[in-house]
Amino acid sequence: MRTTPFYRYEELASFITGLVDNGTLLPGSRVPSLREICERRRTSLSTALQAYRALEDRGVLEARPQSGFYVTASTPISLGLPAMSKPPATATDITISSVVSTLQEYANDARFVPLGSASPSPQLLAASGLDRFLARVARMKGVAYNTYTVPRGDLRLRREIARRALRVGQALSPENIVITCGCTEALTLALKAVARPGDTIAVESPTYFGLLAVLESLRMKALELPTDSETGVDLTALERALAAKAITACVVSSSFNNPLGCTMPEEKKEAIAELLARHRVPLIEDDIFGDIYFGAERPKPFSALDRSGNTLYCSSFSKTLAPGYRVGWIATERHMKRILEMKSASTLCGPALPQAALAEFLATGGYDSHLRRVRRTFRENVDRMMRVVDQSFPRETRISRPAGGFVLWVELPKPLASRALLDEALAKGICFVPGDVFSARQRYANCLRLSCGATWSPRIERALRTLGEMATALARRRTRARR
Amino acid sequence: MRTTPFYRYEELASFITGLVDNGTLLPGSRVPSLREICERRRTSLSTALQAYRALEDRGVLEARPQSGFYVTASTPISLGLPAMSKPPATATDITISSVVSTLQEYANDARFVPLGSASPSPQLLAASGLDRFLARVARMKGVAYNTYTVPRGDLRLRREIARRALRVGQALSPENIVITCGCTEALTLALKAVARPGDTIAVESPTYFGLLAVLESLRMKALELPTDSETGVDLTALERALAAKAITACVVSSSFNNPLGCTMPEEKKEAIAELLARHRVPLIEDDIFGDIYFGAERPKPFSALDRSGNTLYCSSFSKTLAPGYRVGWIATERHMKRILEMKSASTLCGPALPQAALAEFLATGGYDSHLRRVRRTFRENVDRMMRVVDQSFPRETRISRPAGGFVLWVELPKPLASRALLDEALAKGICFVPGDVFSARQRYANCLRLSCGATWSPRIERALRTLGEMATALARRRTRARR
Repeated sequence: MRTTPFYRYEELASFITGLVDNGTLLPGSRVPSLREICERRRTSLSTALQAYRALEDRGVLEARPQSGFYVTASTPISLGLPAMSKPPATATDITISSVVSTLQEYANDARFVPLGSASPSPQLLAASGLDRFLARVARMKGVAYNTYTVPRGDLRLRREIARRALRVGQALSPENIVITCGCTEALTLALKAVARPGDTIAVESPTYFGLLAVLESLRMKALELPTDSETGVDLTALERALAAKAITACVVSSSFNNPLGCTMPEEKKEAIAELLARHRVPLIEDDIFGDIYFGAERPKPFSALDRSGNTLYCSSFSKTLAPGYRVGWIATERHMKRILEMKSASTLCGPALPQAALAEFLATGGYDSHLRRVRRTFRENVDRMMRVVDQSFPRETRISRPAGGFVLWVELPKPLASRALLDEALAKGICFVPGDVFSARQRYANCLRLSCGATWSPRIERALRTLGEMATALARRRTRARR
Repeated sequence: MRTTPFYRYEELASFITGLVDNGTLLPGSRVPSLREICERRRTSLSTALQAYRALEDRGVLEARPQSGFYVTASTPISLGLPAMSKPPATATDITISSVVSTLQEYANDARFVPLGSASPSPQLLAASGLDRFLARVARMKGVAYNTYTVPRGDLRLRREIARRALRVGQALSPENIVITCGCTEALTLALKAVARPGDTIAVESPTYFGLLAVLESLRMKALELPTDSETGVDLTALERALAAKAITACVVSSSFNNPLGCTMPEEKKEAIAELLARHRVPLIEDDIFGDIYFGAERPKPFSALDRSGNTLYCSSFSKTLAPGYRVGWIATERHMKRILEMKSASTLCGPALPQAALAEFLATGGYDSHLRRVRRTFRENVDRMMRVVDQSFPRETRISRPAGGFVLWVELPKPLASRALLDEALAKGICFVPGDVFSARQRYANCLRLSCGATWSPRIERALRTLGEMATALARRRTRARR
């Protein structure tokens, strides 16, 4: 399927898709006829037809005989939403690393159907042409760049990042950005800069297992906050923890947390930023999925809403462009000195050429069209996966409604354990991440995370249906055993 | 100056240089005449002449009129050797990071004469052609490699590393190697794997300031061991610390420690490895300079001498090939599980393409000829720098006699402070690293480290002479002030 936006029909298709995305054209409504659209957009009938057919192929429009084209009426998902999580309000030590290590081996194993690792298909990212930039800088600048970079990293790349940040309301100077080895190093540096071993860090629940592994490696404790699958952490619980002076820092997703895919309303973000600033508890935000929004606009990160300077912003290019390049960044003014010290003592600096290649690629402006393309694909993947899960999993299953990102959170009816399902799934060559690793207390044993990062295929659809059948059979065996 | 080894005269020059290096041709001795060498090596007179002239240019040979070519008779260095260091036998907390951060800014500033950063001239490394391999893998494998690697890193690279390790007696399986972001990450992971915050780690004294910064960031204490400028750490002091159960781990250079450039005799290494194994105190060895030996043979790392599995081996390609690529590694069997957990929680994995490029480059075998070339250059640089220091610094100055690597340790007559010298030097555009950062207790205030990694030039020679004059003038002012 060609998705190059330079074709005229693609421009038109994007235009229509935009109207659907921002709600101008509602599901089930009739779209302008071919003749109308030709007049309004000054395009030829053949281009318009090609655009409508492409949208039909992609499931955005449907043709009704004698009537014209309609926005596909999404059948509502019948499965319920996960309820607000209810972790206990006490801190806990973490022992998750060895479990996470084992999972990563499966997740990276190409023999499994890739529902495990939250990593986009390399093919999906290929169209950016980033590697051609790397090949060029290696040839042109290889000699000059074969040296340690300054600890902050490539200045041109930091400028490009600052330029893009401005669009979402972040006023960053390149001096306040440090390039890191992915978002993992960014989170590690942020935590090392503001907290000490033994300190307690507030996190979402469920939260990204990689963050828990980072906390464990730094010997910090986690306090899991109740988290709603649509609107994120519970403000009251956070207030209570702050009032009790129970936490040293708070790590939250800026948008589309992993695994729930939820995003907080802007007012809630402002309230949280204000609350943490008032208590002088640093807010570490993880915005790695921020560019993959399904709505009309990119949600603002906390640092764009917080004027107090209390926020340490972490992100990377790993989910949208270049997981293989390992380029992330951290932005902070207040904690820059400590961050630089920690960076020097952690990895000294990052490799120079991948940073230079990224800087050149960003400077061309090609990242925006690339982002539009991957955003659409992830949205389609998530949508398809939700529908297949809806059709194949037990009726009492609950699933998240991601507002962005590319993971889906599935809550199986209790007492179904996702570990039991995983054992059966691995035997059939299917991989996913069991829910217990998303909690410092191994909660969510009945949940699982599915990655929608891989290019959609019949193999993936089959694997999902198989999973659903296995879950249904397991549920039935449990029910019979109970009787 | 062309140094490509594919020219016949270069082959001959390498041959002669080898004879000088391994002591077959002694300093001051006559080398075979042009006619003799032509017969023995079956080469043309013009090739032989070109080779001898190149060696003359490089200071290896000197032509004596009417008499022929001689191995350059090295005038002995008149300055004394630094004495064994005598740090107190107690552990200390470290607060060095902010000083190190500031120094790194100077060290990376291209406006200064580069005597600060222990980084080779990019031009010196260019001849390897590594960047062409990166350009090629980016073009050929960019799509497939744009994904998270397994936590251990590129398998082909690990195989190449294991293959090379075998030559120095290390029996490594690729499964026991983890690719890291330079040696800094390797040291960080090793320390995190075997020690906890608050623990005491035995180190050389003076030792690499980056190691001290790592210890500080991990909130570990340092116990500095007395260290001889030719034979390394004092065995008795280490025995005493072990008997007192005062240390959790020991970090030592395998060879050519930074800043002394010393290397331990093999029996001493065996004794240290045995001692640490007996006390079950892990030995973390830093072999980053190991390939830059000036003698006939590469010294063996501890892990090649230790059969107990108590050693964690750290190294990287940063000093010999690719500081800009940030590729190091750690090798251990016993601690692999912990290392992998710490790796995942620190940077997840490294960038894929630079690792793939290195693997392809190593597979061609070109690294060996590259190493011969850089080894020779560093040796020449160190030798020249020792001679200029010998001629220009105060008579009571002591200097190290590096057996490898490319840094020189200079001990100024007390009470001369290298910080005072640094202030004056920076004003004249000259950079070096003051001695106090090589100790957790800020000892060595009268010392400095000079990097010999830059291509030799009149500018460097002038800067060194200026430094010597400034030190002499400072010493005179001190003496007068004392009277």
